[in-house]
Amino acid sequence: MTFETEQKEKEYYMQIIEAIENEDIDLFREKFLDLHPYDQAKFFLTQNENGRMQLYTYLSPEEMAGIFENLEVEEQELFISEMVPSYAAEMLGSMYADDAVDVLNELEAEQVASYLTIMDDDAAREIKDLLHYEEKTAGSIMTTEFVSIRTHQTVKEAMQILREEAPDAETIYYIFVVDGEKKLVGVISLRDLIIAKEDEYIKDRMSDRVVSVSVGEDQEAVAKTMKDYDFLALPVVDFQNHLLGIITVDDIVDVIEEEASEDYSKFAAISDVDTVDNNPFSAARKRLPWLVILLFLGMMTASLIGRFEETLNKVAILAVFIPLIAGMAGNTGTQALAVVVRGIATGDFEGESKLKLIIREAGTGLISGSVCGILVTFIVYFWKGNFFLGLLVGFSLLCTLVVATLAGALVPLVMHKFKIDPAVASGPFITTINDIISILIYFGMATAFMNYLL
Amino acid sequence: MTFETEQKEKEYYMQIIEAIENEDIDLFREKFLDLHPYDQAKFFLTQNENGRMQLYTYLSPEEMAGIFENLEVEEQELFISEMVPSYAAEMLGSMYADDAVDVLNELEAEQVASYLTIMDDDAAREIKDLLHYEEKTAGSIMTTEFVSIRTHQTVKEAMQILREEAPDAETIYYIFVVDGEKKLVGVISLRDLIIAKEDEYIKDRMSDRVVSVSVGEDQEAVAKTMKDYDFLALPVVDFQNHLLGIITVDDIVDVIEEEASEDYSKFAAISDVDTVDNNPFSAARKRLPWLVILLFLGMMTASLIGRFEETLNKVAILAVFIPLIAGMAGNTGTQALAVVVRGIATGDFEGESKLKLIIREAGTGLISGSVCGILVTFIVYFWKGNFFLGLLVGFSLLCTLVVATLAGALVPLVMHKFKIDPAVASGPFITTINDIISILIYFGMATAFMNYLL
Repeated sequence: MTFETEQKEKEYYMQIIEAIENEDIDLFREKFLDLHPYDQAKFFLTQNENGRMQLYTYLSPEEMAGIFENLEVEEQELFISEMVPSYAAEMLGSMYADDAVDVLNELEAEQVASYLTIMDDDAAREIKDLLHYEEKTAGSIMTTEFVSIRTHQTVKEAMQILREEAPDAETIYYIFVVDGEKKLVGVISLRDLIIAKEDEYIKDRMSDRVVSVSVGEDQEAVAKTMKDYDFLALPVVDFQNHLLGIITVDDIVDVIEEEASEDYSKFAAISDVDTVDNNPFSAARKRLPWLVILLFLGMMTASLIGRFEETLNKVAILAVFIPLIAGMAGNTGTQALAVVVRGIATGDFEGESKLKLIIREAGTGLISGSVCGILVTFIVYFWKGNFFLGLLVGFSLLCTLVVATLAGALVPLVMHKFKIDPAVASGPFITTINDIISILIYFGMATAFMNYLL
Repeated sequence: MTFETEQKEKEYYMQIIEAIENEDIDLFREKFLDLHPYDQAKFFLTQNENGRMQLYTYLSPEEMAGIFENLEVEEQELFISEMVPSYAAEMLGSMYADDAVDVLNELEAEQVASYLTIMDDDAAREIKDLLHYEEKTAGSIMTTEFVSIRTHQTVKEAMQILREEAPDAETIYYIFVVDGEKKLVGVISLRDLIIAKEDEYIKDRMSDRVVSVSVGEDQEAVAKTMKDYDFLALPVVDFQNHLLGIITVDDIVDVIEEEASEDYSKFAAISDVDTVDNNPFSAARKRLPWLVILLFLGMMTASLIGRFEETLNKVAILAVFIPLIAGMAGNTGTQALAVVVRGIATGDFEGESKLKLIIREAGTGLISGSVCGILVTFIVYFWKGNFFLGLLVGFSLLCTLVVATLAGALVPLVMHKFKIDPAVASGPFITTINDIISILIYFGMATAFMNYLL
């Protein structure tokens, strides 16, 4: 943004603020409603409770719906409780059904019921239908406000329907074609429609190879289909191919972000990385369960080392290299884990044999292990002047890196096999497992070759 | 997909394969060109070199362009080298300019030059313009194939232009409005256009509050704007507001995926998690540099413990808890890191004071540390029957968790302050730093209170 336009923007917002202060409703509406709903929402968030109360009277429930669609769930929950119930219900009815469902999903059952009772019947029915679908499925993110036409209609008729539906439909750029039983039989884009002649029949211009997703499909799979085909909207069907709704690309953009954050959270062993915590207690609640589990795993490592107490008593210097070996095992395991988890998520491994992948990871571990092992052997030799100690640490590191790399790759693969989301195999989790493996190898070898160390 | 449609699909593809075997070009083209370009690309990938050669003769360069736009970069690089140069050049000229640039960016300079020489002049000019922009900026992902109109045109004229441009433009759903100097002054959606009356002027129907991005803007910022406003296309302008190109939502979907993978890679300390490695050497090349750096950091930890050798000689049992304490420090640090890195990436911390964030993380560390510390004190007491040892381990753990949580939050914040991408503060990196911190605290305390341990 240039300096000039920035100044203009500032003035524009000042005018809106002044209009509110002077209670000049007309000027406020003229300026405010010209903003994009996202900017309206940003402005709305700058208001305190009094300001918001004023805005609820200045704006109709329909106008408020646009703002609400651009707020975060927690914000929606707070603001809807401030509104007069009839205003809130009318606003929910004016929102796109999929967005309204997102809001309602956060509220108490009684509250939902009372809003649905006051609401316009049609809107209430649409919302009730959507509330049934399980979270994170195609059904839960689809909308029922779409345009559908019939095969025997002409291009001109179709355009007429489009003009009528345009204000309410979530998108009019893809028009889905259904038969007499509401089964999906084709699709035509608005682009093709405006190029076609007015008297042509839809069935002659539509594509009958239409890609659809089933209503129970996971949202991550839906996102992949949308991304692969570069669609702006995808039809959602039941098992008999009846058209139930559509999913638009803007919802998919949110899904992709959400899934990426989710993978990230799991990787770091936190329940939910993405909501900002207002106080340390809510933050600790999300992290402590994992930490306590990891603490008990850590105690297992400790008790394992405890078994080698005799070895340690004789050669205390062995302790010096525990964090090095355990740490390196954790690092290489995390790397292998990330590659495999991400590969599974993006579908890159499809068609590749698991065996090949495992052999490759073992090879990678062997190469990394050899390089690091040789390095460490010499460093320890020059530092402590004990070649055998260097050899022990180096060789332990080599073995550890091979096994740890394999573990990092195998754990998510096995989880995937058993239909557990491999992203749960978080970094800290694999790190702790690899701690145990590395200690076993290191102290096992030290104990076996004790005579050479003394 | 139902069983029935699955069967139909199989048959359809069998027909295509048979057509190729029988060299029945017409049947092949009829069936194959009816597929979505993404499915064409998937089919193309199933062919061996002979099959591909056949397809290059069956399909025109324009038709091949659609397939090529749906391939991965490495595949494009391989296949383009198989083609006759004139065929390849014509195909590149038929691709959307931004996609063609992506292909050319992977080739040698001479190759690029030779293709550009053979190519149609207009296409070559467009591509050359785009080749100038730095990678990962708005300029590098925009396309120059867009529809623009003037304020004084009527809706009817605009629709006429749209019909003409529809086959070539990357999107026709947003039409950008420019003045005599090609400066961006407004935008109108096709949705608004088809509702408007034919004789209305564009300037009376367009929105003059148009959101644009500047050509040098980072692609991550562009993606955020697109996501916030739910646009299908964004105009790209230079510093004088001249309209240079547009970015469409399908490219942004790819950017969001790419950036998420990138954050993930850095978190796991790998150069690039997302390309599948064909052999262990290429995999090791991406991971070893990080491992070697971490190895040297690990040697620092080792030399640190070495300084406490005397303490260790006296009380060997101390070694038992090294991995537990170091591991927990790493875990809590990783958690705090993930929250802060993700918060910076999604812009969630905007407007919040850093001090508040730091105090909150310290508080979180204190709560987690107290819970884990008390737990460990009693576990060690019951296990080893030594209350003082339990107290030492527990209190060390408490201190360690507070400091490690703070470190996990502070490191990315400081990096962000100095304009370094905080995602580089990878999990393994913070884990190693926290190893050092935890060892210092643990052995420092053990040495100080040695008398009570003996």
